[in-house]
Amino acid sequence: MSDGSTLTRSERLLRACRGEAVDRPPVWLMRQAGRYLPEYRAVRAGLSFLDTCRDVERAVEISLQPLRLVGTEAVILFSDIFVPVLSLGIDIDFQPGPVIATPIRSVDAVERLTEPDYEASIPYVFEILRRLRAILEPEQVPLLGFAGAPFTLAAYLVEGQGSRHFAALKRLMYAEPDVLRVLLDRLTEMTVSYLNAQIDAGAQVVQLFDSWAGILAPADYRRWVLPTHRAIAERVDRRRAPLILYVNDGAHVLDEMAETGADVLSLDWRVDLADAAARVGRRASLQGNLDPCALAAPPDAIAKMVGELARAAAPARGHVLNLGHGCLPETPIAGVRAFTEAARKLAEPGGR
Amino acid sequence: MSDGSTLTRSERLLRACRGEAVDRPPVWLMRQAGRYLPEYRAVRAGLSFLDTCRDVERAVEISLQPLRLVGTEAVILFSDIFVPVLSLGIDIDFQPGPVIATPIRSVDAVERLTEPDYEASIPYVFEILRRLRAILEPEQVPLLGFAGAPFTLAAYLVEGQGSRHFAALKRLMYAEPDVLRVLLDRLTEMTVSYLNAQIDAGAQVVQLFDSWAGILAPADYRRWVLPTHRAIAERVDRRRAPLILYVNDGAHVLDEMAETGADVLSLDWRVDLADAAARVGRRASLQGNLDPCALAAPPDAIAKMVGELARAAAPARGHVLNLGHGCLPETPIAGVRAFTEAARKLAEPGGR
Repeated sequence: MSDGSTLTRSERLLRACRGEAVDRPPVWLMRQAGRYLPEYRAVRAGLSFLDTCRDVERAVEISLQPLRLVGTEAVILFSDIFVPVLSLGIDIDFQPGPVIATPIRSVDAVERLTEPDYEASIPYVFEILRRLRAILEPEQVPLLGFAGAPFTLAAYLVEGQGSRHFAALKRLMYAEPDVLRVLLDRLTEMTVSYLNAQIDAGAQVVQLFDSWAGILAPADYRRWVLPTHRAIAERVDRRRAPLILYVNDGAHVLDEMAETGADVLSLDWRVDLADAAARVGRRASLQGNLDPCALAAPPDAIAKMVGELARAAAPARGHVLNLGHGCLPETPIAGVRAFTEAARKLAEPGGR
Repeated sequence: MSDGSTLTRSERLLRACRGEAVDRPPVWLMRQAGRYLPEYRAVRAGLSFLDTCRDVERAVEISLQPLRLVGTEAVILFSDIFVPVLSLGIDIDFQPGPVIATPIRSVDAVERLTEPDYEASIPYVFEILRRLRAILEPEQVPLLGFAGAPFTLAAYLVEGQGSRHFAALKRLMYAEPDVLRVLLDRLTEMTVSYLNAQIDAGAQVVQLFDSWAGILAPADYRRWVLPTHRAIAERVDRRRAPLILYVNDGAHVLDEMAETGADVLSLDWRVDLADAAARVGRRASLQGNLDPCALAAPPDAIAKMVGELARAAAPARGHVLNLGHGCLPETPIAGVRAFTEAARKLAEPGGR
């Protein structure tokens, strides 16, 4: 194994996350189990999104689909970032975006949240993970868990729903900072214990999704978001499962991301990987970052782009090949297959 | 005037745009005439957005409102980025976002577009500008014109409407690049002649709004967007009216923006102005860039943020104080007033 040429899929991903030598970048895709797959739509048929997350059999099947169908090299828990929030006594409806009947906009509202008991309130998450791990272990395919980051969860909980500008959230930030601070603290606690519970249940890597932190100016990000990422990186058991940090639209906060202590920084397509490798140095591996829309290109063009990404990321301490954002409903399956195939054909790049 | 202390509002803005000495940054706000003003809502009452743009009396009144109501120091034409597109024979409906009945997705569709005759098809734009200039000239208040940038217009024309991911647009980019190229060329031609016609009608500064170019990776931006901005900067009569280039969510393409030849780069709040000043150097002045949501802060906090912005931008060759995005419907009027007031109280910053 010293030449890295006989790595299992689990070894390849774990080593890349930790910056150890690998033969080539491992590959998986954010939202690889999703609406672009007819098989996913068939399993979901008639079921609400949240009910699908709660249905262990179906969630296991959906999680595994991309392994057979598109050649991904890792499986990620099928669930939603709002599932742990259900443990806080918050009512969420999906219409299809998350809608919170009573937005949280006061310290009192934060203090009324219940103490989460995950095994009691959302046992299916851990049952899905345990079953997946049992299935994947013999094949040495790695299993990822995930959570939404505190700022992103707070954005919806304060706003009551998705938003383009998140003006209610930012109003708190600028006019009632104490409310946002206690809410973020509460959600940080939740995220740490939730991710550690996923690791206990078999997750070998965990990814933190901060979908909305990129709406902040660098100074606001440093004040509000960076402490939450740092606390999570410190307190999640990263010896057992490396932590991947994804910040959507975060090109302007890459330097701050590199200060978190996360093992891997997952970057969207707006970031040039060569530039990121130079700025991040040995502090973290990189994940990404093809524009999911580029999967509409012909297969040879996709292979060319994958080669360019791998070369650009070669100076990084490690590289996990992925998209810069989740697969979209319009993503062509042929494009996804071309992406994973191109990854497998990569010759040992950049001396890793 | 050698000490710059007796500048008119027109002089202050024009000099700041061109990097000449001023006493303090001029101030105006993107979308300063908008729904956050009850007076705006009153004038609009019962009229569609497009009909308001076509109504010369009302559009003049709306354009002037922020001058009296919130202390802005420049007036911008009240119109919409889609108005010139009407001259190409494209039907657009506002519901309230722009909806194009027949999206443009082929070279044929581009070739069927009609040659614009602005004075015949959208004479009201120029009539509004002429009236505004006649009113503002005695007070020496500067008048801005504007246009949507080709990529942003193309995004809607291809997609048929607003979108989060613009997958149809990007599908063209990756799978049928020739279609997008001819469409962008056509829209670049239109934008050049439209902005020059606005300058003929009295606009003293023109701003190009690229609301969606920030969705692109730096390499795609360089290939698809930069040439359109460069062509516009070359061919718009900048001796008569400096050109401001705004790219929303463009922190990752600042270096490319600095290569366009635009007189002023208008930056959203994600960009640190001190960093931008260092990277842009003498190539352009800067405009911006307070998060519009920050106008929810108390007046003294707004004044502090304005002071910080002015200090950060002081090393730039010139600075036009503005938001990093347009005023939002929820923006408090008191916050807008605090913003312009803080600008007027700025002591000569940074040796300008």
